[in-house]
Amino acid sequence: MSSAYSTLVEKFRQLSRLDHAMTFLQWDQLVMMPPGGNQSRAEAIAELASMRHEMLISPEIGELLQQAENQVVEAPEKRSLVEMKREWQQAVCLPASLVKAQSLAGSTCEHGWRSQRKDNDWSGFLNNFKEVAQLAREEAKLRQEVEPEKFATPYDALLDLYCTGDSSAFIQEVFTGLKAELPALLGEVLERQHASADLTGSYPIEAQKHLNEKLMSCLGFDFSAGRLDVSMHPFSTGDRGDQRITTRFRDTDFADALTSTAHETGHASYEAGLPLEWDDLPVGQARNMCIHESQSLLFEKQIFLSRPFLRFFTPAIHNLLPESKRFDADQVWRACIKVQPSFIRVEADELTYPLHVILRFEIERELINGTIEPKDIPELWNMKMQKYLGLSTEGNYRDGCLQDIHWTDGSFGYFPSYTLGAINGAQLFATIRKERPDWQDLVVKGDVGFIRDWLREKIWSKGSTMDSQQIMAAATGEGTHPRHFLAHIRARYLENSY
Amino acid sequence: MSSAYSTLVEKFRQLSRLDHAMTFLQWDQLVMMPPGGNQSRAEAIAELASMRHEMLISPEIGELLQQAENQVVEAPEKRSLVEMKREWQQAVCLPASLVKAQSLAGSTCEHGWRSQRKDNDWSGFLNNFKEVAQLAREEAKLRQEVEPEKFATPYDALLDLYCTGDSSAFIQEVFTGLKAELPALLGEVLERQHASADLTGSYPIEAQKHLNEKLMSCLGFDFSAGRLDVSMHPFSTGDRGDQRITTRFRDTDFADALTSTAHETGHASYEAGLPLEWDDLPVGQARNMCIHESQSLLFEKQIFLSRPFLRFFTPAIHNLLPESKRFDADQVWRACIKVQPSFIRVEADELTYPLHVILRFEIERELINGTIEPKDIPELWNMKMQKYLGLSTEGNYRDGCLQDIHWTDGSFGYFPSYTLGAINGAQLFATIRKERPDWQDLVVKGDVGFIRDWLREKIWSKGSTMDSQQIMAAATGEGTHPRHFLAHIRARYLENSY
Repeated sequence: MSSAYSTLVEKFRQLSRLDHAMTFLQWDQLVMMPPGGNQSRAEAIAELASMRHEMLISPEIGELLQQAENQVVEAPEKRSLVEMKREWQQAVCLPASLVKAQSLAGSTCEHGWRSQRKDNDWSGFLNNFKEVAQLAREEAKLRQEVEPEKFATPYDALLDLYCTGDSSAFIQEVFTGLKAELPALLGEVLERQHASADLTGSYPIEAQKHLNEKLMSCLGFDFSAGRLDVSMHPFSTGDRGDQRITTRFRDTDFADALTSTAHETGHASYEAGLPLEWDDLPVGQARNMCIHESQSLLFEKQIFLSRPFLRFFTPAIHNLLPESKRFDADQVWRACIKVQPSFIRVEADELTYPLHVILRFEIERELINGTIEPKDIPELWNMKMQKYLGLSTEGNYRDGCLQDIHWTDGSFGYFPSYTLGAINGAQLFATIRKERPDWQDLVVKGDVGFIRDWLREKIWSKGSTMDSQQIMAAATGEGTHPRHFLAHIRARYLENSY
Repeated sequence: MSSAYSTLVEKFRQLSRLDHAMTFLQWDQLVMMPPGGNQSRAEAIAELASMRHEMLISPEIGELLQQAENQVVEAPEKRSLVEMKREWQQAVCLPASLVKAQSLAGSTCEHGWRSQRKDNDWSGFLNNFKEVAQLAREEAKLRQEVEPEKFATPYDALLDLYCTGDSSAFIQEVFTGLKAELPALLGEVLERQHASADLTGSYPIEAQKHLNEKLMSCLGFDFSAGRLDVSMHPFSTGDRGDQRITTRFRDTDFADALTSTAHETGHASYEAGLPLEWDDLPVGQARNMCIHESQSLLFEKQIFLSRPFLRFFTPAIHNLLPESKRFDADQVWRACIKVQPSFIRVEADELTYPLHVILRFEIERELINGTIEPKDIPELWNMKMQKYLGLSTEGNYRDGCLQDIHWTDGSFGYFPSYTLGAINGAQLFATIRKERPDWQDLVVKGDVGFIRDWLREKIWSKGSTMDSQQIMAAATGEGTHPRHFLAHIRARYLENSY
């Protein structure tokens, strides 16, 4: 190792220890902290974030990167250096004044949105949102200027923060493939869908907690290296050896918590399986949100919500929640995968969800690239909702363009990862099914170890040592392609096969 | 404010935000973290501790302190500066090589002790302990050299880390007053003590958890600014607006957890009542461990274990733990305050506890000042145990000089704070009793607000704006004096009055 490189390794390890601190302080804030702790916690996290940022953008790191680039020639370290430089560049390219203005405008807009959404107040929201959008455009331009040959449009530079490596042109191509078939498929599924049972009942929370822990164990979660807790919104976080996932319980429903727990278990499994030899370095981190979401959706949609897995797992539900005995495994399965077009993305089924995402991708792309203005959003939203899902949001901002938190603080470029994740997940699982034609015989017995082993080898252990499309191609024989997702939808919803 | 002083305020606020992070990462480690998280957590905490140390000992702070000392003349800031300088001096006076050697020797000795204690292996322990003691002597000399006019002996310099402001000569005088009466008092109490009930029974943990939370609420704990959890050893920690205490439950006993919860609620109440205007600065912190322990022991011994409070609280015990109904309030009280000489400090009652502490104080003082050697400890221990408690530890190292963890990592000077705390607590409560002769009428109704108000005004809100003996004198009319503790023992154990 060159001495510049090994100094960088030490520096990035320090950064990752600050990340560790922030990670668990934030977990505690959302899961354990009493309200009185808000101010001192916010101050502590802001201080750590600021120390981390100062350390990362110090001139020393820039010089070390330059020296190391001239010294490092071997493949694995070279790759590690690329990922270090990416993180450094993403931090140094924005002036502190812009970051501060964004933070302020974002807080104001998000704060206002919480009541404006309830009040269906688009014009009030627009007042604050204009500045958020303007600052995001500035951010996008500055990020684009760092690597103009890589980012074809300003939006591509924002996209790269979440969908690292996948360009907007590529994503558009993938989404075009989906759009060409999904609306018609939706009509067909709705026509042929059986009526499904209403799972509503009385399901004690304490028993549900045990049931969810049981599900996690069945899915391979290691409780000596992680926890399940309760929070307002489910999430997954952690560090080496300690993955924390959360869920939420309602005492009238069991399916929602289980589905969400399976989803977060996928995220946690990916994190737990990252390459130990690159631990604490950028190259050892999860590749991007499109891969991350592919793991959570694979666990949720491809494993947990599969007919064989629910045949295996329903006896555990019956056992811990006696009132659920009214429903057999296939009734539970059908109720959980019911397709129903609706206004709200987070409540959407797996067939309509991509249409919600494509709509947002198309709008935010134009917004950041400057071909539409914030005021144009509601009309475009309504038009696309009618076209993709047959629903009108005219005048209904609450259930339309005001429903998501993402844009309020300027997180543009995040939405596509949900659907790229769904496609990647379906594509990875299609390969697994092909390699293990007996997969249903295994899963119906609760054996998912072969799936975990495959994912560990092909995805988790790769960290960021390859680009996401290289990872997909090495694992499945090709880059992200919508045909696998569409095949999955047909098999599950038209052929009822799994 | 001088500009040097206000820069110092900013610097110490940064340090306190790192403290916040370490505080809650350590709480998590002991209360929530799965075992798999050990390594990454240890690395993160070590990194934060090292960053904090580097920031504190930077030459800039030394220069700012010097500048500020010449500029600051007003009383409150001057006091604040004194406490900043104390913290800085305690950090800069030790070379990094010594700190590292101590950390290594301490870990080795503590690790070995865990099995050597079980094996009664004094000579194995001695092998490791010699170096710990030698390094502690070096530390003591270096600390003494900083302020030779303040520290009469090397041991005084270590004592100052925990009993800040109380010299070893002063403590010896106080302890001499106790020693003169306690052994005889013990004999008298043992002779006249009634037989007490055996509280052993079956007490479900979940109900005990509710009971302990109820106790905390009765004692004034604010659950919007704190939590109760479970850990292997009870402790209390936290930061502004967020006090975390822990306890442990056994399903055969309820008294132990309640007593410990009352104790930790005292610690937490002190922390929650510290002066907001000095928040995040050294002068706003708890004065020292002798005052801290006075608050926990006042809550435990003077309030919770008082006859009137247990008359008030026993119905809640009956209500949540039906099997406890066999015992009336006075039976619970007598069982909880039973006096019984024993080998083990942590299991000792309030009458014999000081004798365990005095023994340790006398031995560690001589050890650090160099008038005895580590090899002399077992003989001295046995001699003093026979003299103070009538028990022989000859050849029984396990229940003698190997029982405590404190010395294994070089924490000399801590033990006296337990008994100074007990004396201070009794002295403070004697003043409260004098000012409120109707105290039993209030406490028997569960009213402890007048006690909290008094403590807030006299102790909590003072932070470190005064020396501990000034605080005691302002609150009670004199510095720490053993007569109040002895009077409390006589009143409770010979006169059965409360």
